[in-house]
Order: sequence, then C-alpha cells, then structure tokens
Amino acid sequence: MSAIEQKLAGLGLALPAPRSPVANYLGAKRSGALLLVSGLVSSVRGAVATEVTPEAAKRAARDTMLDLLALVKREIGDLDLVVSVEHVRGFVRSAPDFMAQPAIIDGASDLVVALWGEAGRHARTATGVSQLPYGAAVQLEMILRLRD
Amino acid sequence: MSAIEQKLAGLGLALPAPRSPVANYLGAKRSGALLLVSGLVSSVRGAVATEVTPEAAKRAARDTMLDLLALVKREIGDLDLVVSVEHVRGFVRSAPDFMAQPAIIDGASDLVVALWGEAGRHARTATGVSQLPYGAAVQLEMILRLRD
Amino acid sequence: MSAIEQKLAGLGLALPAPRSPVANYLGAKRSGALLLVSGLVSSVRGAVATEVTPEAAKRAARDTMLDLLALVKREIGDLDLVVSVEHVRGFVRSAPDFMAQPAIIDGASDLVVALWGEAGRHARTATGVSQLPYGAAVQLEMILRLRD
Repeated sequence: MSAIEQKLAGLGLALPAPRSPVANYLGAKRSGALLLVSGLVSSVRGAVATEVTPEAAKRAARDTMLDLLALVKREIGDLDLVVSVEHVRGFVRSAPDFMAQPAIIDGASDLVVALWGEAGRHARTATGVSQLPYGAAVQLEMILRLRD
Repeated sequence: MSAIEQKLAGLGLALPAPRSPVANYLGAKRSGALLLVSGLVSSVRGAVATEVTPEAAKRAARDTMLDLLALVKREIGDLDLVVSVEHVRGFVRSAPDFMAQPAIIDGASDLVVALWGEAGRHARTATGVSQLPYGAAVQLEMILRLRD
Repeated sequence: MSAIEQKLAGLGLALPAPRSPVANYLGAKRSGALLLVSGLVSSVRGAVATEVTPEAAKRAARDTMLDLLALVKREIGDLDLVVSVEHVRGFVRSAPDFMAQPAIIDGASDLVVALWGEAGRHARTATGVSQLPYGAAVQLEMILRLRD
C-alpha cells in the first residue's frame, strides 16, 4: 500500500471504486509534468442551503476529492507519484442566498493538505453556480504535479 | 489544405470565418508548449431546456468548437501544428431543472476526437450557469499542445 | 519601487494591503515557470445590473485585479518578476437578464495591459454566475509567467 493510502487509512478513509467519465472525455490527461484531472460531481444532489446542509456539502466535497484520487490512482497507478497539488477548482450548486462556497470546498482542500502536507497546499477558486450535472451539490477538478 | 481540415471536410464541415475577441483580450495565448484558447460563446442564444433544446445546444457546442478551431488556425497558421487537446471547459446556460450539461458539451468533444483521434481525447469539466455573455447557450474554452 | 509599481502610480493607483485566503488554500502556487493565482472576490457585493451598476462592477473588477497584484507581490516579492499575463478568468454575479460580462472583466484586463503592454495581453474567459462567495459582484483569478 502506498504511503498516501496509508495516511488515508490513518484518517479512517479509503479510496472508493474509481468512477468512469459519463461522456466523451478522459478522467485525466497528462500534460508535461502535470496531470489535468477532469471535473467530477458529488453523489450528493441538491442546492446547498435549501436542499443540502452546508455540513453535508462539505462532506460531499471531501468525498468527491476521494473520487478524484481514486480516478488519479487508476490513471497513474500509485498516488505516491503525486509531487504536489497545484490547483483545485470547486463549483458549489448554491441556493440564491448561499454565499459560503469557500467553506464547502475546504472539505476537499483539507483532505489533500492532510495527505500531502505543505506540498498539498494549492491555489484554488470556489464559485457558486445555479446548476450542476445530475443536480449535484459540488463539482471538483484539480491539477497535480507528478514525479518525472 | 491541412490534414485536419481535410478530415473536417470529410465530416461535411468547414471552418467558419474566425471571430475576434469582443473585449480587451487575445483569442489565444501561447504559454510554453501550450496554447490557452479564450472562451467563446455560441451564436445560439437562450437557456437550455426552456429556450433551446438539448439537441440544438449540442449542435451549438460543436459549432462553437468550430469557431475555436478557426480562431486557433488564425493564431498559429495551421491546425496540423496541434499535437493534442489537453483540456476543454464548457459552461451551459441551464434552465433551473436542466442537469445534462455533459451531453451538451459532447458536441464539442466528439468533434475534436473525430479530428485528432486518441490525441484529441482530453480532460474536461462541464458546468451549468444561469447566464452567459450575450445570453448564449454554451461557452467553450480549451488548452492545446502544439508542436515545438 | 519596481517599474510596474511606478506605472501603477502613474495611473493614479496603488497596491492595497494584500488579502489573505479565507480558507485552507494558498493565495498563489508556483507551478514551473507559472504562478497560478487563486480566485479573489470583489469587496463590492451584489448582483450586477440590479444591485450593482455595470460601471461600478467594472471598477470592482479593476480593484480586484489590484488585490490580485498585491497578493502576487507578497508571494514573489517584486511585480517586475512577472514576464507576462497568460490567462485571466472572471466570474460575474449576474442578474437574470445581464449579459455583458466581458465589459465588466475589461476593468481587470485593461489594467494589466496598461501595466505590462503587449506581454499583459492574455487569454480570457468571462462567465456569468448566480452567486459568489460573500455575495460579491466579481471573482477573478489568473495565471502569470515569471522570470526564471
């Protein structure tokens, strides 16, 4: 088991079965030293604040990051090949008055910082939107740097 | 005529006249080996599901990709200089209950995969939004890798 | 004072105090020769067209770019280390009928072109959204190329 997966187990978490793209695109594309990871949506559905609580949405962001990591492992074979997390982008399906998108996306950011430490700290943008694929509460994508 | 434009003709399609940026930015910026292509919106206007059918929106995504390719040709001179499609980002102006954004953006993804084959397969995020410039149904941007 | 800050002063502008990330992420992450700058929102709050005029939103976009530049200076020490502006992404919190997002984001683009000239010209996407963190009118992020 890789060092990163051991850390994950130490947090009481495990990688889920990787999900496959739902349309004509790759789960991730290698671009030089970077891995561009496609957007995945949470299995939790609904607008945050009215249909999904902020607490549930933050957990959904963490779980969607686990889905992204499972996808990355399938693509590159071993999460220990990840040198750093460069960027995370999060879209939060927001009820009209919901304005705390950054706190939701922290569910994802906290996890990668716990796993990779300083190298897991990343640039980020968290944005509110009115709708997401399948009515999901959260959508996440990221850019990773891989070992040469 | 370039090999890519010949394939395009074989699909019964052709590059439109390139459009110019509508404000103070470039159509595309070279960044090392990559070409960052600015967002373009579809000429089809309206919210998908209520004002524009999903079928029309998918065609609009394909046509917007043709617009992006026309812009790329103007910038770099020859589409055969494109080595691969790294990333596509699509925003779909979505009626409140419309949740099938990935199927719309496939209109764009299918085209570049038809043109570049395996190298055309890309990472992607498809997101729903409530409004786009000019009330367009679809907005697309992408990142290409160019021959050195 | 750096050449860029002298130009800024010549425009009657100055860098504000840098803002800190509001959650668990970095203000910017160095990625090879690039600096990925996290999204920041404007201090101006409200939906553009109904709560904030387009003119005020365009100024807010300029002021948010000043916030991004202040953050970049704190990260890299000197804005003269910026070789070029590769990409700017803007989200505009838009009233349902507001469709002129590109004109708003020009407030940011005009500033970096005034400061860096041709090298400041960038690829860009301007998108409308229904909500942003803290109810802000504008959110901006960018990618810069730094001197080696």
